[in-house]
Amino acid sequence: RRGEMAKSTQLIDNEVFRAYATYTGIVLLKMMLMSLITAYFRITRKAFVNPEDTATFGKGESAKKFLRTDPDVERVRRGHLNDLENIVPFVGIGLLYALSGPELSTALLHFRIFAGARIFHTFAYLIPLPQPGRGLSWAVGYSVTFSMAYRVLKTAWLL
Amino acid sequence: RRGEMAKSTQLIDNEVFRAYATYTGIVLLKMMLMSLITAYFRITRKAFVNPEDTATFGKGESAKKFLRTDPDVERVRRGHLNDLENIVPFVGIGLLYALSGPELSTALLHFRIFAGARIFHTFAYLIPLPQPGRGLSWAVGYSVTFSMAYRVLKTAWLL
Amino acid sequence: RRGEMAKSTQLIDNEVFRAYATYTGIVLLKMMLMSLITAYFRITRKAFVNPEDTATFGKGESAKKFLRTDPDVERVRRGHLNDLENIVPFVGIGLLYALSGPELSTALLHFRIFAGARIFHTFAYLIPLPQPGRGLSWAVGYSVTFSMAYRVLKTAWLL
Repeated sequence: RRGEMAKSTQLIDNEVFRAYATYTGIVLLKMMLMSLITAYFRITRKAFVNPEDTATFGKGESAKKFLRTDPDVERVRRGHLNDLENIVPFVGIGLLYALSGPELSTALLHFRIFAGARIFHTFAYLIPLPQPGRGLSWAVGYSVTFSMAYRVLKTAWLL
Repeated sequence: RRGEMAKSTQLIDNEVFRAYATYTGIVLLKMMLMSLITAYFRITRKAFVNPEDTATFGKGESAKKFLRTDPDVERVRRGHLNDLENIVPFVGIGLLYALSGPELSTALLHFRIFAGARIFHTFAYLIPLPQPGRGLSWAVGYSVTFSMAYRVLKTAWLL
Repeated sequence: RRGEMAKSTQLIDNEVFRAYATYTGIVLLKMMLMSLITAYFRITRKAFVNPEDTATFGKGESAKKFLRTDPDVERVRRGHLNDLENIVPFVGIGLLYALSGPELSTALLHFRIFAGARIFHTFAYLIPLPQPGRGLSWAVGYSVTFSMAYRVLKTAWLL
């Protein structure tokens, strides 16, 4: 049993894997934060999508007017979906990248730039900042994931 | 070659990892089920979004009336998207958590509560149950993922 | 330090895991490509959703007319979301499957069929091909993931 535990902690003892775990934890928590921001705007803007969510505002027609879209809610939701589209590939490819034996400094560079770019992207989306701020931060994160995918495919290639 | 296979099964021999694999399999299959439910409602409600999907119902104007949104279809799709937003962080953070060497009983507690909460969330969304049923089940799953992320970051932290 | 690196590359030395890494890299890159195709259609069709994205087309009312939905843009976005709904389970379940010690030939069969089905699905969605082309390719990818999940749960089952 002791041996099993030792085995299970091998990966987490590896520095590159620890860095991967840290940055994956950070970007996934950042993505989860979007749910809370959406809920905050839905409640303060009184803009819901499910009839059962408006029951506390009264019955019948008086509650129906809260079944509507709100620009702020929709903006957060677009940011959330963009996170899913970009953070999912980072998490999947990043794991394989971390297991492909890169230098710690190179791996940290990838992870730090990605996390920074995605955090900036969220601010750029929610404030919103004028373009090309959001577009560039998206492209930076995208390029980092692409660079990791290149190393993964070069190292692992078995079709 | 034998040695390689042995190596590859180390992780799956670890009990915490086996528990992770079981519950991840269950919640991902549950998420995949949402596609089937969406298809079921699209076909029974005759509510499609792609013109090529309505071709079996006739040509031209007679088929066009099936290009419409239906409340039941949209409800399942919202449940599906909510799954993506919450099960993706569970799968990613849960893997790192399982590799961080937690006690089996603590890990099982996390995985069981998350799976239970997400299965309840789906029923709460589709029936639908009155609030705060759905909201609470969402919050329970969210908290479990957050608790696992806390341990991952505490164990792995390397910025 | 050398020992750590050796440990970290164990998984990537395993042939089944290398095949998993290769096909996961391919399907995640394919999914990422959908972002570029969406951007291409948004720019060529001049159909945007964020006011700040239309600033280069002039100010005020003249830019507002580009805040609209376009059928081609929406079609790519639906393909992208369908990728998320299907590739996320493949990546998560596929990792556990690769660690469950399957025969290399069986694993390759699963990965190749899934990747082929999803690439076909994208073409079927974007061209678009008449049904049931897209539906069948979706079902094939879905079945492969289901088959891998069955083996994972059979091997790992610990509830």
